[in-house]
Amino acid sequence: MGWNNWNSLGCDVSESLLLDTSKKLVGSGLRDVGYNYVVLDDCWSAGRDEEGFLKEDLEKFPSGMSDVADELHKQGLLFGMYSSAGEMTCARYAGSLDWEENDAKSFANWGVDYLKYDNCYHLGRFGTPKISFDRYKVMWDALNATGRPMLYSLCNWGEDYTHTWGMSIANSWRMSGDIYDSFSRPDDLCSCVDASNPHCVAPGSHCSVLNIVNKVAPYADRGQPGGWNDLDMLEVGNGGMTDEEYKAHFSLWAALKSPLLMGNDLRDLSATSLTILNNPAVIAISQDPEGRSVARVRRELNVAKDKYGVGEIQVWSGSLSGGDQVLLLLNAAGEDTRISASLEEIFLHDGPEGSAPQVKEEWEVYDLWGNRMDEALAQKILDADEKEAEKLWKQANWYNATEVNYKEGLKKRDERLMGKKIGKIAPGGTWTADVKRHSVEIYRLKSIGHGGKRKVHAKEEL
Amino acid sequence: MGWNNWNSLGCDVSESLLLDTSKKLVGSGLRDVGYNYVVLDDCWSAGRDEEGFLKEDLEKFPSGMSDVADELHKQGLLFGMYSSAGEMTCARYAGSLDWEENDAKSFANWGVDYLKYDNCYHLGRFGTPKISFDRYKVMWDALNATGRPMLYSLCNWGEDYTHTWGMSIANSWRMSGDIYDSFSRPDDLCSCVDASNPHCVAPGSHCSVLNIVNKVAPYADRGQPGGWNDLDMLEVGNGGMTDEEYKAHFSLWAALKSPLLMGNDLRDLSATSLTILNNPAVIAISQDPEGRSVARVRRELNVAKDKYGVGEIQVWSGSLSGGDQVLLLLNAAGEDTRISASLEEIFLHDGPEGSAPQVKEEWEVYDLWGNRMDEALAQKILDADEKEAEKLWKQANWYNATEVNYKEGLKKRDERLMGKKIGKIAPGGTWTADVKRHSVEIYRLKSIGHGGKRKVHAKEEL
Amino acid sequence: MGWNNWNSLGCDVSESLLLDTSKKLVGSGLRDVGYNYVVLDDCWSAGRDEEGFLKEDLEKFPSGMSDVADELHKQGLLFGMYSSAGEMTCARYAGSLDWEENDAKSFANWGVDYLKYDNCYHLGRFGTPKISFDRYKVMWDALNATGRPMLYSLCNWGEDYTHTWGMSIANSWRMSGDIYDSFSRPDDLCSCVDASNPHCVAPGSHCSVLNIVNKVAPYADRGQPGGWNDLDMLEVGNGGMTDEEYKAHFSLWAALKSPLLMGNDLRDLSATSLTILNNPAVIAISQDPEGRSVARVRRELNVAKDKYGVGEIQVWSGSLSGGDQVLLLLNAAGEDTRISASLEEIFLHDGPEGSAPQVKEEWEVYDLWGNRMDEALAQKILDADEKEAEKLWKQANWYNATEVNYKEGLKKRDERLMGKKIGKIAPGGTWTADVKRHSVEIYRLKSIGHGGKRKVHAKEEL
Amino acid sequence: MGWNNWNSLGCDVSESLLLDTSKKLVGSGLRDVGYNYVVLDDCWSAGRDEEGFLKEDLEKFPSGMSDVADELHKQGLLFGMYSSAGEMTCARYAGSLDWEENDAKSFANWGVDYLKYDNCYHLGRFGTPKISFDRYKVMWDALNATGRPMLYSLCNWGEDYTHTWGMSIANSWRMSGDIYDSFSRPDDLCSCVDASNPHCVAPGSHCSVLNIVNKVAPYADRGQPGGWNDLDMLEVGNGGMTDEEYKAHFSLWAALKSPLLMGNDLRDLSATSLTILNNPAVIAISQDPEGRSVARVRRELNVAKDKYGVGEIQVWSGSLSGGDQVLLLLNAAGEDTRISASLEEIFLHDGPEGSAPQVKEEWEVYDLWGNRMDEALAQKILDADEKEAEKLWKQANWYNATEVNYKEGLKKRDERLMGKKIGKIAPGGTWTADVKRHSVEIYRLKSIGHGGKRKVHAKEEL
Repeated sequence: MGWNNWNSLGCDVSESLLLDTSKKLVGSGLRDVGYNYVVLDDCWSAGRDEEGFLKEDLEKFPSGMSDVADELHKQGLLFGMYSSAGEMTCARYAGSLDWEENDAKSFANWGVDYLKYDNCYHLGRFGTPKISFDRYKVMWDALNATGRPMLYSLCNWGEDYTHTWGMSIANSWRMSGDIYDSFSRPDDLCSCVDASNPHCVAPGSHCSVLNIVNKVAPYADRGQPGGWNDLDMLEVGNGGMTDEEYKAHFSLWAALKSPLLMGNDLRDLSATSLTILNNPAVIAISQDPEGRSVARVRRELNVAKDKYGVGEIQVWSGSLSGGDQVLLLLNAAGEDTRISASLEEIFLHDGPEGSAPQVKEEWEVYDLWGNRMDEALAQKILDADEKEAEKLWKQANWYNATEVNYKEGLKKRDERLMGKKIGKIAPGGTWTADVKRHSVEIYRLKSIGHGGKRKVHAKEEL
Repeated sequence: MGWNNWNSLGCDVSESLLLDTSKKLVGSGLRDVGYNYVVLDDCWSAGRDEEGFLKEDLEKFPSGMSDVADELHKQGLLFGMYSSAGEMTCARYAGSLDWEENDAKSFANWGVDYLKYDNCYHLGRFGTPKISFDRYKVMWDALNATGRPMLYSLCNWGEDYTHTWGMSIANSWRMSGDIYDSFSRPDDLCSCVDASNPHCVAPGSHCSVLNIVNKVAPYADRGQPGGWNDLDMLEVGNGGMTDEEYKAHFSLWAALKSPLLMGNDLRDLSATSLTILNNPAVIAISQDPEGRSVARVRRELNVAKDKYGVGEIQVWSGSLSGGDQVLLLLNAAGEDTRISASLEEIFLHDGPEGSAPQVKEEWEVYDLWGNRMDEALAQKILDADEKEAEKLWKQANWYNATEVNYKEGLKKRDERLMGKKIGKIAPGGTWTADVKRHSVEIYRLKSIGHGGKRKVHAKEEL
Repeated sequence: MGWNNWNSLGCDVSESLLLDTSKKLVGSGLRDVGYNYVVLDDCWSAGRDEEGFLKEDLEKFPSGMSDVADELHKQGLLFGMYSSAGEMTCARYAGSLDWEENDAKSFANWGVDYLKYDNCYHLGRFGTPKISFDRYKVMWDALNATGRPMLYSLCNWGEDYTHTWGMSIANSWRMSGDIYDSFSRPDDLCSCVDASNPHCVAPGSHCSVLNIVNKVAPYADRGQPGGWNDLDMLEVGNGGMTDEEYKAHFSLWAALKSPLLMGNDLRDLSATSLTILNNPAVIAISQDPEGRSVARVRRELNVAKDKYGVGEIQVWSGSLSGGDQVLLLLNAAGEDTRISASLEEIFLHDGPEGSAPQVKEEWEVYDLWGNRMDEALAQKILDADEKEAEKLWKQANWYNATEVNYKEGLKKRDERLMGKKIGKIAPGGTWTADVKRHSVEIYRLKSIGHGGKRKVHAKEEL
Repeated sequence: MGWNNWNSLGCDVSESLLLDTSKKLVGSGLRDVGYNYVVLDDCWSAGRDEEGFLKEDLEKFPSGMSDVADELHKQGLLFGMYSSAGEMTCARYAGSLDWEENDAKSFANWGVDYLKYDNCYHLGRFGTPKISFDRYKVMWDALNATGRPMLYSLCNWGEDYTHTWGMSIANSWRMSGDIYDSFSRPDDLCSCVDASNPHCVAPGSHCSVLNIVNKVAPYADRGQPGGWNDLDMLEVGNGGMTDEEYKAHFSLWAALKSPLLMGNDLRDLSATSLTILNNPAVIAISQDPEGRSVARVRRELNVAKDKYGVGEIQVWSGSLSGGDQVLLLLNAAGEDTRISASLEEIFLHDGPEGSAPQVKEEWEVYDLWGNRMDEALAQKILDADEKEAEKLWKQANWYNATEVNYKEGLKKRDERLMGKKIGKIAPGGTWTADVKRHSVEIYRLKSIGHGGKRKVHAKEEL
């Protein structure tokens, strides 16, 4: 969890941007719900020195990267940087391909905690899993050789079946072309829509939320503790989607266990955006210690379409620690729709055709958006100075992950992580909800019955 | 033929499981209809010792693998084990990639007779047939170097066209993602439905019986004596299908010459399941010495659909030793259906458009499920102790492959392997049957006429 | 042009088969219309000797291959043999992979003139063009090293884009799975129907005439003097098609410049088959010295279907030496159909939208089946002894390519190669014909006008 | 920009052709609107000398290539030549594969300024990006080693994802099979229509304008200063398209930043063709210093079809230097159609759903074909001798890029590069035009409002 400048600011990076953002992270309380990486994307360098080491652009970063890192660390934040496994970065700055050792050393020396590693200008070194794996492994080895722990985030757009080998060398791997700030619009620059074709001619740079979700569905289960499917950075707050769409986007990213990197300009953070991003009940799904992604149990295409001709309904379900279950109803149709899901469906992957023991239990349903922060309070926090904000935050009794991390909070079953109880499902029953167009409902289900011995579920098969 | 714990029990493995199961194999008579491999799947190890040899998990296997093997051998059974051609197994135990020699030695030393070799965490070493072949060949060479004969079973999910090279290094090869306990339900985690695309993005872990059958159809003929298409382990008895569906599943696996590895928990074996699994007339199709898979001669999609929107009818046919023919009518439509097959179709691959000499012959039709064991008797056997069971078994005059193997039995045309005579097809005629939804009819056809010299059929072309 | 035993006889090969066939080739006059290769397919060997050389099976070939070759040569025929670029041949005899030098030497020593080189059991050495090219090039180099000229015929089923590299090392290359004796029936064992996908999961062994024609259409132009697209051996006379279908099959193979290898058992040659196979006007298309395949200029799918649900109409056109043009109208629809083709279409590839100069010329139309041999005469020839047959042949003034080859005959515009004049097309006009279902009309068009300077057409672009 | 002989003349090349063409380039004024490369395509060589250097065919080029180059240089033109990264060129002359160093030296010695480098007969060295990259890089290195700057133009038909690596070694790369002189007709020899499938079985040699445009859409953004998507040479003037179709073809090539190489026989240049090719307002889009291709923002398939069953409407938009925008409305439907585009769509890529600041501005609309040269004047120029022509040209005040290049002209906002003002779009408004069938409207939009700070747009993401 953290923040990255690219989605809102592109190449417009600077030392002050990072420092201003870090202050906002702390002041808005976002750090304390878990966002602790500040990631600087492309366009920060000024070529290599005569010994072949990357130089920071001192006009943009007059204090140097080392000082930036120190400053962030002082605020309890971690520092992420960017390079590309190519001769150039995507914005055509010097790339790290064949310079991995030097660059890893620089990152370590600067105090970097995270590397986003991109895929542009790779000199034809892709097209089979082995050649991509080998290219990315060089940097992995170089990072490890420094001795400094750095999170390693592959940005190779899912090429060459990254989900089959990313786990062996990285902490996360992008699985699609770049996201753009649209919920469902198909764009010709994200032409690859067939999830079964990893060799699409161009992964693209204008992939909608729905496009990405549909691509990850066949291997959503590949994200596991140690390595995650990365659905790309969040667009929440960038202006191209409605509030419901942003909530849906955020809920899906959490349920699918994608890294949660805010992509908006925090210096202009709105109260509405804040109340999406700081929802601990949804973040708790993302940070669940069992680390299992939801899987899709239903997709219906025969529904009303939106203005782009897109329309579908999806039901996702997955297990959580403590025997809970997360259920997500996605209405990506062109109109408000009633969606139902039976316990048979919800627990399908524990046994088809209703044979799972959970089907015989009774379940309480908790709405994870039921306790969304009041927008007026959010505005007050944003208007306040850091001390006041902290006070407001504490008054509101908002969840503070810096004090008690999600693992602990979930073990204690902290109510602030549970959502708002809104009903029950009887044994063998069905949950039904009216879901607005371009929106999701997301629930935590808690068992209150005893359906018999649950199947051993520790196997971690593909 | 044998048993493997994965489908029903996943990682929940132990010495007692294997030994209890082996007793049940003997007591239920299943060993004596041919199931003689007891295969331990993933989750049995506890890392490597300092010399780089795999250690068994002594909490799960207190006597050690060697003793388990001895115990199984004493009962006339063979012992199968599991590893993966990756840095980790699928459940993230130590894998054998780059440790093949050591591990083959361990297996040989322990007295192992069979190796299931999986595909997880392969470090990007797939994507072209050569790289997969080479990866799997290392273990083949290592197994051979031990001097101990071990059956080698590739579990690489059909990636990289295994059916074109598996025969050269292995005894069987998986050709799809993992099966799950559903007859026809499509699941997003088995997204690869196009049999013509071996580079599907994820072979998957929730592939239905019908999905697998449709995938193997284009190269069903690749299984031949020496190497077989492996359609994955059986789900019979695991609860997600009806009796008719399980019969269909079992019949298809037999006719397609897939290895028959039971996947249910034998400690809870029901009488119904037993009477499917112990049908010698169907098993005789699987074990036919000619070793030719059926091929599909018809597929109709324009039929009633089931609740998953799936519906189709298929006709499969193939030659057996002794001039017999096996005919299988699969009703995967949403309702009971009348299905016909003409001799022209049945013998299509001996000559299109009715030009095969067999078309001019008269044929007797034997229903292979006509002599299914009575469920009451099966229950008695299951309730009996070992000695009593043996007595019941003998009283019933049930086929005993331990005494007379299928090859010999078929040569003698043992009636217990032939099924129940139910009719005839006149020369140039057609067979018609009412087939229940989600069900098969499977027949042995015997010629009683003389249609002229049959075409020489010894060619083993692709 | 020649004959190969596989399609009709499979593994049932012997010295006497070859010698009996060679006699029939001479006696029936087929040698003298151009069929001069006698090709022995799989199943002739008996392993390797201790020095690693292939041994002929002396039970099947008691005189040895050398003597067989001598005998064939004496009759003015050439001798073709078979091996596979794999560890085994398709019928599981010893293959030549990694034994190329030895085997090429054997072939040269035996006096072989032609090698069909198959693709089974290739040890995973395919999947990229380079690896297939390299595998097949080894034999090419080995054949060349012997000093004996041998025609080199690749049988790799079009895998790895053979049409892009076959020309560099071979005289022909198969571009599909094996043909079977059906005009249009789709079969699951020839699952690959998408011509744009050379990585179909299995090229197959039951590909219909129509399936093959549709696959070659996108690169029909790749066959050129020096190297040809091989559409597989002929099925004419094997019993699964009607006379019209066999004529269509033969006409297409000729117009597409596929090698013409008869695949029927010549010992049972019927008069009907003979009158298809010995049509010099059609063969003259195949042997045209310009060596340009026809290209498809129209395909209509919206027509009546046959019992297999297949139905389409196609128009093919191509240039011949001497300024002539071949036009082929294929009716693969389910009923008799009137088909038209305008000069604009016929000369499309000389200039779109009617801009080709040929469109302004007048054309005479010659039906290439117009002078088919009378069946009674053919029967007489078949019933006669060799001398009588020769006499009948001469009386009939049948074209004799042994005396005057097609190149010379065409240069002289021998009337026997021209077909039968049946009409004219006026400048800018259209040709219309009623074409029976599953049949073709094939014409030679001769210009009798002057449409202006023809475009220079010597470019040999892809 | 320049001229190449292939499309109109194929192999019919000679010294006199090049010199006559160069005179026409100067005399017609085409050189002075920017066409300064004279490119000789295939068929110019006569094998290699004994030291392995290519020999020019002295019958076709009696003065030798060096003299040809000198002559062209004297006229202010640059000289392009052709070879192929194969053992043979496409017309089967000697290829440069494995002779790169020698051939680069020859080109440098001869004074060549540009190399078109083709893809035929590559000995199987394609199929993965790395192998194609490596093959083409050898020539790149060889060219660089000569010390003579030569533009390097890859002609590998988009195989192996050239758009991902072409930039690293070349100035442009072909992305499709060869163009042919048709606007929309699908041809079986350009079978590859799925842009997402770079492994189409044959890139083809009969690709229509529309086919090519649709293929480049997913990665139109890959062309950037330094390296361009090459849509193949122009067909303007070759006779297969209407005037409107040729205008559309030319406009699309300019807007998509494809190299503009005339492909007609300039010796027969018509006035109509001249007035298409010499339109400085359209060429200014092509030569815009920002170097950003348009991207497609709408494609509608549900419209009237033409006689080939093809019919669609497309809207393309892209940014220009100086804050202008180019808008292109393509009517490839079967009938005249009214097409609208809202500012929201036009600036979609600056912010989805109308969030781009430009949407709030007012825009002037300039028709880029509004000042097309009068055909009578063009005829006069073509009829005049060189001096007269220059006079006419100056009288007409036609843009002269030899005197003031496009970059400078655009900086000064030279009116001759701007098109003809025809209307305005109000903030939030929509532009509507009646577009004839098989035609485009192309506009330059100039902002006259202030919609707020525009988003920083310097990022050069994929």
